[in-house]
Amino acid sequence: MSTTRTVRSELADGREIVFFSLAGNTARPVPDVRPLPARADTAPSEIRRDRQTGDWVAIAALRQERTYKPPADQCPLCPSPNGDRSEVPAAEYDVVVFENRFPSLSGAGDDAPEPIDDAVSAPGVGRCEVICFSSEHTTSFAELGHAHARLVMDAWRERTAALFALTGVEQVFCFENRGAEIGVTLPHPHGQIYGYPYLTPRTMSMLRQAREFAQMYGRNLFADILAGEIDAGVRILVSDEHVTAFVPFAARWPVEVHIYPNRHVHNLSELTDAELDALTSVYLDVLGRFDRLYPTPLPYISALHQYRTEGIQAHGYFHIELMSIRRSETKLKYLAASESAMDAFVTDVTPEQAADRLRSAAS
Amino acid sequence: MSTTRTVRSELADGREIVFFSLAGNTARPVPDVRPLPARADTAPSEIRRDRQTGDWVAIAALRQERTYKPPADQCPLCPSPNGDRSEVPAAEYDVVVFENRFPSLSGAGDDAPEPIDDAVSAPGVGRCEVICFSSEHTTSFAELGHAHARLVMDAWRERTAALFALTGVEQVFCFENRGAEIGVTLPHPHGQIYGYPYLTPRTMSMLRQAREFAQMYGRNLFADILAGEIDAGVRILVSDEHVTAFVPFAARWPVEVHIYPNRHVHNLSELTDAELDALTSVYLDVLGRFDRLYPTPLPYISALHQYRTEGIQAHGYFHIELMSIRRSETKLKYLAASESAMDAFVTDVTPEQAADRLRSAAS
Repeated sequence: MSTTRTVRSELADGREIVFFSLAGNTARPVPDVRPLPARADTAPSEIRRDRQTGDWVAIAALRQERTYKPPADQCPLCPSPNGDRSEVPAAEYDVVVFENRFPSLSGAGDDAPEPIDDAVSAPGVGRCEVICFSSEHTTSFAELGHAHARLVMDAWRERTAALFALTGVEQVFCFENRGAEIGVTLPHPHGQIYGYPYLTPRTMSMLRQAREFAQMYGRNLFADILAGEIDAGVRILVSDEHVTAFVPFAARWPVEVHIYPNRHVHNLSELTDAELDALTSVYLDVLGRFDRLYPTPLPYISALHQYRTEGIQAHGYFHIELMSIRRSETKLKYLAASESAMDAFVTDVTPEQAADRLRSAAS
Repeated sequence: MSTTRTVRSELADGREIVFFSLAGNTARPVPDVRPLPARADTAPSEIRRDRQTGDWVAIAALRQERTYKPPADQCPLCPSPNGDRSEVPAAEYDVVVFENRFPSLSGAGDDAPEPIDDAVSAPGVGRCEVICFSSEHTTSFAELGHAHARLVMDAWRERTAALFALTGVEQVFCFENRGAEIGVTLPHPHGQIYGYPYLTPRTMSMLRQAREFAQMYGRNLFADILAGEIDAGVRILVSDEHVTAFVPFAARWPVEVHIYPNRHVHNLSELTDAELDALTSVYLDVLGRFDRLYPTPLPYISALHQYRTEGIQAHGYFHIELMSIRRSETKLKYLAASESAMDAFVTDVTPEQAADRLRSAAS
């Protein structure tokens, strides 16, 4: 991590901003001169436990006011050379991360209240960050060069460690939502990083399965799944020395790809430079295939599954899950009653067909 | 059930169709003369277990060919007096149920294969039915009169008992998807009934919670949730002698209402006539509020949670969950990374605000 060149600054309302620079570049933030209202002293959101399932739900009423599809010349993620027009007070940047102005969860850190395990409601403590992948408004992650994409990986790695260190954060989730079809309101290429005060429901479900598997068989469930996919071969997209990408055996989405490092690690911090480089290459390869599937770019969700190294999270295995709701050139998969009300997914493409199509979409 | 007037017939490819009639009406099916291809002898779909979570996923590749937004004069759900133009060969009907021509799950019944508990894949055995709420192409459930809506309840009850009796069906799920915003491709007012060969993931999660609660406290979790809502009062929409409707404490959706009978039953079969009448009234009341929230009708999902009376399902408590993704007059809630990849819901309206708005939308 010591090799990543970072410059830290602060936005007008006290939010933290961190610039990550490519070799040869140096970030030069200017003062953020916008007259922003002060942030609330306490977490303005709330978490409530759904007693039907035991799952936490976050209620962030202030997010109704968040920025919604602004004109391109008012993009809050473009650089602002005079510090007066956007969230990024600088003439240029490579990759930048800052605290979300409209956070679903906030206030993690030294002053965070103690969590209460058996509560049914609690303040929405946590952390929500925005990560801009490039200062170019109209590019996309898939179009980044390898060094630039690797810089995003480095930024994810740095922020993962930083958020894991905050009191009140239990799980760190780096993700990208891409495409108006899934509700993205800012087209500038960016992702988000959530520090949740709880284990998310899907993570909890996966960790319980992995713990049970470890107790029964003495080995890691996800390593077993990866070995099974490599052995089967029929759903593999890429498998090199360090990293494997495949369509999972029971894919829930019309387009779904999981990318695993071949070695069991818990989060980005544990990967070697060689592994991170390989992960970057495979990630760019998969995103490129996504955009070659149809005449228009694929809307997708990219989700980094990362874990702490102790407790139940030690059963986790770092990997990236990518998924899309597009089921044909013109049709989307909607999450209707079976999926939304019962979590029971029904797909209309076999994972093997999906893998064939993605293999045909190689560059 | 003996009072419900039903007429049974068969479609051209052997699928079952059942007509339910209002008092004074009699269904008069004509022969279905369409040259439909024969159905497959075996379940053409597959279920696979996601080893990451233990959840089943259904893969129904033939559904890619299903009917997609046909012109109104080719609606497959309108009556077809000559038996040559739609799925309902009859001059008129009140409520009709038939097997889906493009089923996600099929083949439940006497010839169904034995389930294999620890398998990772199996044939997609089950049952998928379509229920048309009215022969009027442009009406909606909310606009049905009480007797007609009660007839739908009776049809749901009859089909629930019929599907529970089929070998290969573990869970029966009656639901309605309404609105193009959630992917509905046929505007004719209709719902669907799924007989799953497994407990759906959300149902499994709810039953595990309820079993744990019963072991700890010796009473039913859902009865406890209902009593708590009635006691709190702040999220109640309607509460009469038999039935209560409320916005749940940890609502996941911008609009979400749960309707419970006040007495613990497992499915529609156990309700008395008086309870079914009350449920019908409250259901129509809630749907009416939904359509008065905004200038255009609300897209929604309605999900009937029904259970068998033995095994882990005995911990279930019949209720209806209604939800909508519309979060303002012009905006939808999209299920992006937090919800889709991690099942971690973030809402931007408090359940108490949502309940206030629905209380203001009384007729």
